[in-house]
This record gives sequence, C-alpha cells and structure tokens, in this order.
Amino acid sequence: MRVLDLDTPALVVDLDRVEGNLARMAHRAAAAGLALRPHTKTHKTPQLARRQAEHGAAGLTVAKLGEAEVMVGAGFRDIFIANQIVGAQKVARLVALTRQAEISVGVDSLEVAEPLSAAFAQEGRRLAVLIEVDVGLGRCGVAPEAAEELAARVHALSGLTLAGFFCYPGQVYGARDAKEMEAIAAEEGRVMGELAERVAAFAGPGLRVSGGSSPTARHYRPGGGLTEIRPGTYVFNDRMQVARGAAEPEDCALTVLATVVSTPGPGRAILDAGSKALGTDPVPGWPGQGMLKEDNRAVVARVNEEHGFLDLSAASRSLRVGDKVEVIPNHCCFVTNLFDEMAAVRAGEVVEMWPVLARGRMQ
Amino acid sequence: MRVLDLDTPALVVDLDRVEGNLARMAHRAAAAGLALRPHTKTHKTPQLARRQAEHGAAGLTVAKLGEAEVMVGAGFRDIFIANQIVGAQKVARLVALTRQAEISVGVDSLEVAEPLSAAFAQEGRRLAVLIEVDVGLGRCGVAPEAAEELAARVHALSGLTLAGFFCYPGQVYGARDAKEMEAIAAEEGRVMGELAERVAAFAGPGLRVSGGSSPTARHYRPGGGLTEIRPGTYVFNDRMQVARGAAEPEDCALTVLATVVSTPGPGRAILDAGSKALGTDPVPGWPGQGMLKEDNRAVVARVNEEHGFLDLSAASRSLRVGDKVEVIPNHCCFVTNLFDEMAAVRAGEVVEMWPVLARGRMQ
Repeated sequence: MRVLDLDTPALVVDLDRVEGNLARMAHRAAAAGLALRPHTKTHKTPQLARRQAEHGAAGLTVAKLGEAEVMVGAGFRDIFIANQIVGAQKVARLVALTRQAEISVGVDSLEVAEPLSAAFAQEGRRLAVLIEVDVGLGRCGVAPEAAEELAARVHALSGLTLAGFFCYPGQVYGARDAKEMEAIAAEEGRVMGELAERVAAFAGPGLRVSGGSSPTARHYRPGGGLTEIRPGTYVFNDRMQVARGAAEPEDCALTVLATVVSTPGPGRAILDAGSKALGTDPVPGWPGQGMLKEDNRAVVARVNEEHGFLDLSAASRSLRVGDKVEVIPNHCCFVTNLFDEMAAVRAGEVVEMWPVLARGRMQ
Repeated sequence: MRVLDLDTPALVVDLDRVEGNLARMAHRAAAAGLALRPHTKTHKTPQLARRQAEHGAAGLTVAKLGEAEVMVGAGFRDIFIANQIVGAQKVARLVALTRQAEISVGVDSLEVAEPLSAAFAQEGRRLAVLIEVDVGLGRCGVAPEAAEELAARVHALSGLTLAGFFCYPGQVYGARDAKEMEAIAAEEGRVMGELAERVAAFAGPGLRVSGGSSPTARHYRPGGGLTEIRPGTYVFNDRMQVARGAAEPEDCALTVLATVVSTPGPGRAILDAGSKALGTDPVPGWPGQGMLKEDNRAVVARVNEEHGFLDLSAASRSLRVGDKVEVIPNHCCFVTNLFDEMAAVRAGEVVEMWPVLARGRMQ
C-alpha cells in the first residue's frame, strides 16, 4: 500500500529519515564519549526502541512506570524511569517490574526516596536510584547546592543504591541561538560533573551522570562532565526542532497524513486533522500548528478539534477537496500520544503498521 | 473505591454535576422550542450518550465517521456526523453504516456531495445531508449568500435527501461579553432561519436547521430560526466555559486526578499530570492549563509533557509529596481524548469505570 492510500488522519513515519536521525545521534554521542539512553516517550513504540538499540543505545529511558512495563514486556532489560515514582500502587508495580529487568528511577527528595527504600529493603533487594538535579528548568529536581546532602542521605538508606545523578536542561528551548544552547550544555556538564566527583568520594566510582536533550546533543564534548545523554525528539524531529536550529526540515520523519475536506476561499484549505491529531503545542516565534512536508511555506495556521486551517497563500500549488497532504507537526512527542498506530513507510510504501503500544500508559 | 484511591493521573467524572448540566441544557432547549442533539465528541463515551438520551436528546451528533460507528455499535440509531465525509474508504463505510442506523452528514460543496450521491444512488438508497453554512467562524461551510444555490443543486442530486442546514457559531469563543454572545446567537438564527424558509419553497417543509454551541445555548428564543442545537461541552463544562461566563466552577464535572511528586519551593508543587493529561489548549485571558476543583485560585501555571507546575501562591493550603488533587482542565473535549477510561464518581465514590470507547477513532 502507498502512503496516499491510507485513510486519514493517519500517523506516518518515514523510516529512511529515522535511520538518518538515529545514525547522526549515535555518532554524536560516540564522538563525545557519552552513553546514549534514548527517551522513548517520543515514540512509545517497541519497534522504534529496537532500532535505537541497534544504533548503539546503552538502554532506554521512559517517562512513566506504565511505559516501562510496556518496554519490559517487549523484551528490553535496562530501563531508566526519568521521573519520581510516588504512591503505594506504583511502588508495588515497580517492585514487581524489577524482578524482570534492571530498572533505575529518579528521586529528588527524601519524601520520594523513603517509601522506595522501605519497599525494597523489605524485599531484601536494592533499587538503583539517580538523584534529579535542577540545572535551570525549575521543574522537579533538587538544587545543585543541596544535591550532595540529599545524595549522602539516599546513599545511607537501605534498599537503595545511589547510581548517579540526572537532569534535564529543558530551558534550552528558550535559548536565543546556538551560542546560548552551547553555554547551557557546557554549564549542565560542569555542574553535574563536579557534583558527581564530590559524591564519588563517599559513594564510590562509576556513578551515572545523565543529562541532555535533542537540541543540546550537538554541543557536548568529551570530558564535559556527563557520562550519558537521554535525547528523545531526535528520532523524528519536528517543527520545534527545526525552529531551534536542531534539525533541517528534511530530517523530520513523523507526519500526519490529512485530507482536504473544504476549500472555502483562495489560498485556504481545511484539513481533517485538527488539535486531536496535531496537538496545540506552540513553537515560539513560529505561528501555526504544522507545515507541509512537500512545501514548508504551506502552514497549518490554526486548529480546531477536528479541522486544520491550511494557509496556502505562500505555497507553490493550490489544493482541491480530496487531496492528501503530509503535515510536519510542531511537537512530535505529543502527536504520537494521540494515535493508536503508525504507518512505517519506506520510499512512499507502507511496510508495516505499528501499534503505539505505550500510548495511554499514563500511570 | 474512593476517588482518592485511584492511581494517577486519572480521568474523573462527577455524575451529580453531569446530571445537573444535562437537566439545565434539556430545560434550555425545551424552553426555546429546540430539539437537542448533543455533540458526543466531548465525552466519546456511550454511557454518557445514554444519559443524554434520557435527558431528552432527539439524537446524537458526532465529529467523525469512526465515532458514529462506535455509537451505532452501542445501540444508538439517529446520528448526525457534523462534518464532511471525503474519500472512497469513508464513503464505503458510511454506506455500510446507513444499513444499521439513520445517519445524516454534512456537505459544503458539490465536490463533497457528488461522490456521496453516486455511492447512494448506486445502492438505490438516499442519504440525508445537511448543508453546512459558515455563519462567521471561517472554517468549513458555504457562505450564506451561496447556500441556496448549493441547496438547489444538492436537492437535484440522486441518492441524496436535502434534510436541512447546519452551522457552528464558534466565533462565540472570541466574544467580549454576554451581550455579544447573544448577538451572535440571534444573527445565527436569523441567517439560518431565512435560508431555510427560502429553500423550503422548493425542497418542502420540515427542514432541520441545526446550530448552537454550549455558550450560545442560553441565548436562543422560540421562533429564533433554528430547530435544533448541538452543544457538546455542557455535559462536563471546563475552565474555558467558566471564563466565557457559560458555567460556574461548581458546574465543572470533569477533572484530572493528579499526585504531587515534587515540591521544589514555597507555593509550588509539581503534579504528575502534564500536557499529555491536561492538553495545551489555552483560555484567552486566563493564564495556565487548569485550576484545582477544591480551590480555583490554585492554578496549573504551565505544563510539560508529564508535569504540571501548580502555583499555590494564592491558594488556601500548601501541598506535600503524595497529596492528590483534582484539576479542572481548560478544555474538557481535548482531555477525554487523552485517556482510555474515566472513573464515574458519585459523592466521592467510584461507581463504575467507563472506557472512552470512541477515543482514537480519528477516521
């Protein structure tokens, strides 16, 4: 089946572009001497995690316990849940999951660490934890100046192994230019590396120092302080990555195939893909909710739930009712979360349909 | 099980509030002499459609053919797909569905109407179509001044029955105040009513004249031009409806139960519900992505994919790691599309878990 024979809206993945993105990131990580632990929240799909493993991933990252369960079910055995696990139900599931695979999790407070300690001590086993450090995003994470003390207290808890530190330099999405991104990446490595060095004095060597994001990945250098990066978006890229200078339009591998259902006026077409297919994440400075793969000047100017308002005024061709187009979305991680399956495509031919197996695993 | 025993994030529906919302809208429609055909894209759930039928709904509205298939499968027999059906695959499914139930659909051009005509004429049957009229939103729909001519041409096509007209006055969400909303509702009725009267001269009486939205519903009067309204959001209400003055916070029936996973500083708490649970739809003039059910001054100031940044600086109490809260989201229709199931709750007790059966039925 050809891509254009799919009914719409449909989620489409260009495998040649994915392969290019995976090879590029593997090369970058290797050149910087970093382990690569891709964040699978972007695709939520075991078939793509497998390709990341084939491209040198040392393990996987997930955002949720439920995603970890899916990936363990699919055969993966080294998974980092880059999040706090809170609540008795989740702790019980985590205990069960660690019987099947090597799972590490984040903690950023004793309130999070102590129930984990109690549960694993009772099991007579140890859970690997990484302390989350806030390197500037202002989300979760302990402040760098308080991280050493928290590390010492976590190190002293039974049932836990202090395995290292992690951070997410998400403030990079607010950076003005590549120079500022480079500075954020350098500072991230410095803060995390110095912290790990101090803590190694009492916790021993071999700590994981995990950071990174897709836009900062090109800026890491050997000996910069991190030992591991967890980029996610790079597998597909999207309009946000293009706007941040972290990818070219030709690197965007994920699209939403949509049909023109109405042409209410010159230079305008209404698509059958709206916010429930394209999301509503904005790209700062770039109006609209997506752009056509065939012509980036054709922009989905806005979305309602079921409709995309395509602005063709700067585009190379007009469209008619029934025409199909591929839209590069603003934020690919959000879009995969809206579809139950994706069409894996090579040279315009659908080679397989993949369920987005970890979609909806919110807990 | 109590609500607070649910693992998080979880979608929660307060049935007492739903009943109040359904009764209020049924009363409004009856008082204005209008048939009520609720738009089920808001909840996508047969159990709630059934309650709407019990509260006097004359039929259901859906946004997608796939949603219609789910509702027909659940036993509903009168469904309007308020959208254009475009493409051979969808037309074939529509033909099949009309063998099981009374389905009507929208058309806003001959390009949409002619393939439907051909398919149903070949079957020797007739499909009921309503012409979509653009009353000011600028989305799909033929201009009012061109609608009579399109109606005449559709009326002349074999295989189709011209059943009426429909519109969606979505520009009401940009209205400044109730007076402007009332004017939009009055103009909608005038335009649609006059059109139907002219067309009845050649198409015969009994045309459906369908319009409306949740915020305009309180402004319709008997003899105002419409015969039917299709509000959707009213079943739950949300922060957007409160901001538009169309509901009180106490009318908001849908919440996302979330857990505090981190308290990085005074007056701040990080929730385990982010954009993948709360969406990113903005409410113009009201910053943030949601507010707590227990205290509307506590606002989810922003979201990342897996995290909500709760601002408690104006709130009545502080929160600790592990505490659970219910968030009233900005836009309930989008949020139900993110969850596979919802907890139906009465007086804090979970009485049933309902699958969001039409979620993901995008085609």
